[in-house]
Amino acid sequence: MTADVVPFTRKQPTLDPMLALTASGMNAVNTVILERMQSDIPLIPRLAGHLIAGGGKRLRPMLTLAGAALVGYEGTRHHKLAAAVEFIHTATLLHDDVVDGSELRRGKAAANIIFGNPATVLVGDFLFSRAFELMTEDGSLRVLKILSHASAVIAEGEVSQLTAQRQIETSEERYLHIIGAKTAALFAAASQISAVVAECSDEHERALEDYGRNLGVAFQLVDDAIDYDSSAAEMGKDQGDDFREGKMTLPVILAHARGNEEERKFWKDAVMGHRSDASDFDEAVRLIEKHHALEDTREKARHFAQRAIDAISIFPDSKARAAMTEAAHFAVARGY
Amino acid sequence: MTADVVPFTRKQPTLDPMLALTASGMNAVNTVILERMQSDIPLIPRLAGHLIAGGGKRLRPMLTLAGAALVGYEGTRHHKLAAAVEFIHTATLLHDDVVDGSELRRGKAAANIIFGNPATVLVGDFLFSRAFELMTEDGSLRVLKILSHASAVIAEGEVSQLTAQRQIETSEERYLHIIGAKTAALFAAASQISAVVAECSDEHERALEDYGRNLGVAFQLVDDAIDYDSSAAEMGKDQGDDFREGKMTLPVILAHARGNEEERKFWKDAVMGHRSDASDFDEAVRLIEKHHALEDTREKARHFAQRAIDAISIFPDSKARAAMTEAAHFAVARGY
Repeated sequence: MTADVVPFTRKQPTLDPMLALTASGMNAVNTVILERMQSDIPLIPRLAGHLIAGGGKRLRPMLTLAGAALVGYEGTRHHKLAAAVEFIHTATLLHDDVVDGSELRRGKAAANIIFGNPATVLVGDFLFSRAFELMTEDGSLRVLKILSHASAVIAEGEVSQLTAQRQIETSEERYLHIIGAKTAALFAAASQISAVVAECSDEHERALEDYGRNLGVAFQLVDDAIDYDSSAAEMGKDQGDDFREGKMTLPVILAHARGNEEERKFWKDAVMGHRSDASDFDEAVRLIEKHHALEDTREKARHFAQRAIDAISIFPDSKARAAMTEAAHFAVARGY
Repeated sequence: MTADVVPFTRKQPTLDPMLALTASGMNAVNTVILERMQSDIPLIPRLAGHLIAGGGKRLRPMLTLAGAALVGYEGTRHHKLAAAVEFIHTATLLHDDVVDGSELRRGKAAANIIFGNPATVLVGDFLFSRAFELMTEDGSLRVLKILSHASAVIAEGEVSQLTAQRQIETSEERYLHIIGAKTAALFAAASQISAVVAECSDEHERALEDYGRNLGVAFQLVDDAIDYDSSAAEMGKDQGDDFREGKMTLPVILAHARGNEEERKFWKDAVMGHRSDASDFDEAVRLIEKHHALEDTREKARHFAQRAIDAISIFPDSKARAAMTEAAHFAVARGY
């Protein structure tokens, strides 16, 4: 089969330019993260460290650093704020794992499996509080406003997702609204605050916010595609989790909408939780492939990634803009 | 039996003077609470409202209002901040109920029982975020520092309590440290921020913080006594919850320390969860009574309540001071 694959004429997009751009800044951010997740209660750094040291991409703090590079900010305030963003993200991951009863996170046993739900909820609360302590130390009320609002929106998005779960009638519009809140709001805020510390114009601040928001939507769309993508590389998440949890993501919404009567009945049963065998997941993947739902989900991701790229086109060409542009392409291409 | 009761020569202390002092302010606070717990996601105000409308005493926001009255503050900034304090408290209650698997809260089914753990965790996060939005709108970085730090300390206290659970060796010192964090830190912060908005001297600010902290310790000690007090009035909490959960509270620590070998074995087994019949709880109450552990717990509470009263003795006599003094007496006497 592999003999038929057309060789790539263009290099696959990667995060490498973004990683190179932010490498020294991320060292400073990681130092803040390690320092500020400490506590006299040993279980706190142990549990937080399990996830934090667990090799996430730290994409959100990276956005803050990349934005700062894009606008030529030369201070160091953004290191603490980027750490705060990562703490908020980590807190939501810990709570998500409890909410979803996850077993795997980033390829390792999820914190709730090792440490139990109670400690996982409480350490999430601790990190969330620490995030606000860090922001308060920085002292920008505008940053506090952006990130406290983003946190409220994330929680709203998560609750909205919860109420859409196992509801086959969930519309594409509702789905986009949910991922805009649960994922893209923090991407947007992480990116926007770089413009705030650099005291940019409103136009530049909005551009960075738009970049982050559209990138976040693209990332989540592709995440949701990967959960059904039989050709996807291991992403550290249990493939099929969304299926088993009856989460209404775009691949399901599209396959259901395009299905015949029998297929729609399958989706309805599956989303209700009545189809939880391994063979049921295979059938779901088959139907999703039959109706090109993954290609169309990625196509939609491509649209948002392009909007992210467009948003920063008002900045002059630079290494930072090139890295951020490639990151947007990477958001769409990853997992292939 | 009741014929033998010595009639009270002094009126039992009540919260009435505190309620009267803060009545109009609490109306304003309640308006903020109701407005700001709203969301486009209907489940959020429904779940939050279940607890918020569920008739808590709103003691913590009341402390902010009483403190403001004590120092003669005439503005309205503290209304929003008092609402933020109540949101933080509500968020921790929601998460506590998930952590403890509670069935009752304030005499009603706990939110986690009605709405499930996932929604309860997430709505807690929403309220927590809203609290920081309210503080940010107010704009005092000092208040943000006090309350973000208090939130982190609360989470630390809760994790510390979790790790002390089912550990018979937990010391009185460790226990006092835990309740200082999980309960008294927010009482202290709620009280202190009234001095911040009123721009008081450091001395007055410290006095209010001390009042709140000592009052909080007294309240928690009495809460922990009531859980084993066969004569206590219905407090809206399942009596015996602490016993069943193997929580190391002062009544248990004292009864265990004073017990003979057989009694210590009972406590060890009970705390480990091997004594969960109704008759076991009766035996626990009997042993606690035998060793005067409730009287001594209340006596300790009285000590902290007196320190709270001492702390505000630097303020001139006033209706506010009298109300706050009686509230401290009430903290010790309630449940009798």
